[in-house]
Amino acid sequence: MKTRIEKSIDAAMDAAQKSPDRSAPPQLKSALTYAVKPGGARIRPTILLSVAMACGDDAPAMADAAAASLELIHCASLVHDDMPCFDDADFRRGKPTVHKAFSEELALLTGDSLIVLAFQTLTRAAAVDAVRAIKLLEILTRATGSPDGICAGQAWEGEPMIDIDAYHRAKTGALFIAATCMGAAAAGHEPEDWVEMGARIGQAFQIADDLADVLQTEETLGKPVGQDEVHGRPNAVTERGVEGAIKHLEDALESAITSIPSCPGEGALCELVRYTAEKLTPVTPTARVAIRA
Amino acid sequence: MKTRIEKSIDAAMDAAQKSPDRSAPPQLKSALTYAVKPGGARIRPTILLSVAMACGDDAPAMADAAAASLELIHCASLVHDDMPCFDDADFRRGKPTVHKAFSEELALLTGDSLIVLAFQTLTRAAAVDAVRAIKLLEILTRATGSPDGICAGQAWEGEPMIDIDAYHRAKTGALFIAATCMGAAAAGHEPEDWVEMGARIGQAFQIADDLADVLQTEETLGKPVGQDEVHGRPNAVTERGVEGAIKHLEDALESAITSIPSCPGEGALCELVRYTAEKLTPVTPTARVAIRA
Repeated sequence: MKTRIEKSIDAAMDAAQKSPDRSAPPQLKSALTYAVKPGGARIRPTILLSVAMACGDDAPAMADAAAASLELIHCASLVHDDMPCFDDADFRRGKPTVHKAFSEELALLTGDSLIVLAFQTLTRAAAVDAVRAIKLLEILTRATGSPDGICAGQAWEGEPMIDIDAYHRAKTGALFIAATCMGAAAAGHEPEDWVEMGARIGQAFQIADDLADVLQTEETLGKPVGQDEVHGRPNAVTERGVEGAIKHLEDALESAITSIPSCPGEGALCELVRYTAEKLTPVTPTARVAIRA
Repeated sequence: MKTRIEKSIDAAMDAAQKSPDRSAPPQLKSALTYAVKPGGARIRPTILLSVAMACGDDAPAMADAAAASLELIHCASLVHDDMPCFDDADFRRGKPTVHKAFSEELALLTGDSLIVLAFQTLTRAAAVDAVRAIKLLEILTRATGSPDGICAGQAWEGEPMIDIDAYHRAKTGALFIAATCMGAAAAGHEPEDWVEMGARIGQAFQIADDLADVLQTEETLGKPVGQDEVHGRPNAVTERGVEGAIKHLEDALESAITSIPSCPGEGALCELVRYTAEKLTPVTPTARVAIRA
């Protein structure tokens, strides 16, 4: 799975680095690679490919393009969100953020280029199946832009009156909903049936992220902690306490499992959710035991 | 033509402001409108629709979506290019830039959202004709991203060794090439035949922009002047002098006219190029006379 994801990302990245006519500006080329490789847990494309496989994965090139495009959007959002006008973060995935390693100019352009590259990757995949490519573009543009996507989610943070439901759904949920729906669509299944599963995984991820922000150290997390408090953002731990947040996380994962539509690979998908749960929640089981002790 | 363009932009914008599920964050919604309306000369969509009409315009909804998407990308690029890490411009089109009127956060997100909206607009148009929509997406993603698009063009400015040809072609040429090629593709014609015309108009536009930067005042231009010198950017006037730059501009427009492929609306297109020339070059004819006097 890991190899498949990295291969599809590399193939997509090639298109941004050089064309038949010319090469990218050298620094932009480096910054693009820096922003995307080696990458983090690749949770979103892993979910996407798992759903595609559970749905039969009858057009693997389509699923690969979908997985790469989704991860490129995620990477773009990290680059822009880390910039001084937002989180002003110095570190990400244990190394300096793009604007620190290169410059603000290059961070802005790297994010922009990655957004474009994601949609270009899906456009290219139309050679395999135009109808599915269009469906994937529909899902991913919606999950990225406004009013339902991560751009809107980020914008909610600056509003004097936050619509908490819209905020969480757009900020974190959108790309997880895209992950399950794109996995299904890439394999020719009806994406609508997979919205609920993506939404519940997204919710779990958000709570896990809130827990990590409160409970972990910058060293173990590879990025600054305590950011929700600094930026006055809603955090599940503040709202429910650690125990309450963990219970809420477990409920979300349970709902994710029960919402899996009937399909050949249903069992394998349940396993994936449990595996994701472990990945998502570095506070469990060790820290959880410590907290409960 | 003007009405048609504004209507198609408004239709596209609606999708970013509200969905069946929810409305956009109010400030983002305002910033999106602020960045796009009332707009400037709408030169790129005007060229696009003119080419589409010269090619028969047999699917007007397709051409409308193409025109709107191209202008949205142009607006996005203006919002991001005006930001403090690039031009740090306070005014654009005679009013405060988006980051000045709202905030840097909102300027960044507005640009991102407009990029996504452009591709979403073309994706929606697949309902009219999927093959043409995919072709339009191919052209516009290439013209926007890296290495051939405006992201790369902007990135060349920060390189210690600038590839001048790649820089101009990507920075200004890309969206003009997209204008002519998308116009043809929207009407079911072969876009490749229209690359040269777009490239020459783009070149003329670049020289006109260089002339304006040197010869005009902030008041008449609606944005700061003398920016090329401030940012150490190449400028045709520095390279060739005012007379030489004007001669070069006239040659580029002449080449644009001779490169028009044989099509029913060839004559009308020649008129458009001459009209564009007037729009493009506010230094002509009055200033030109003054300069020559």
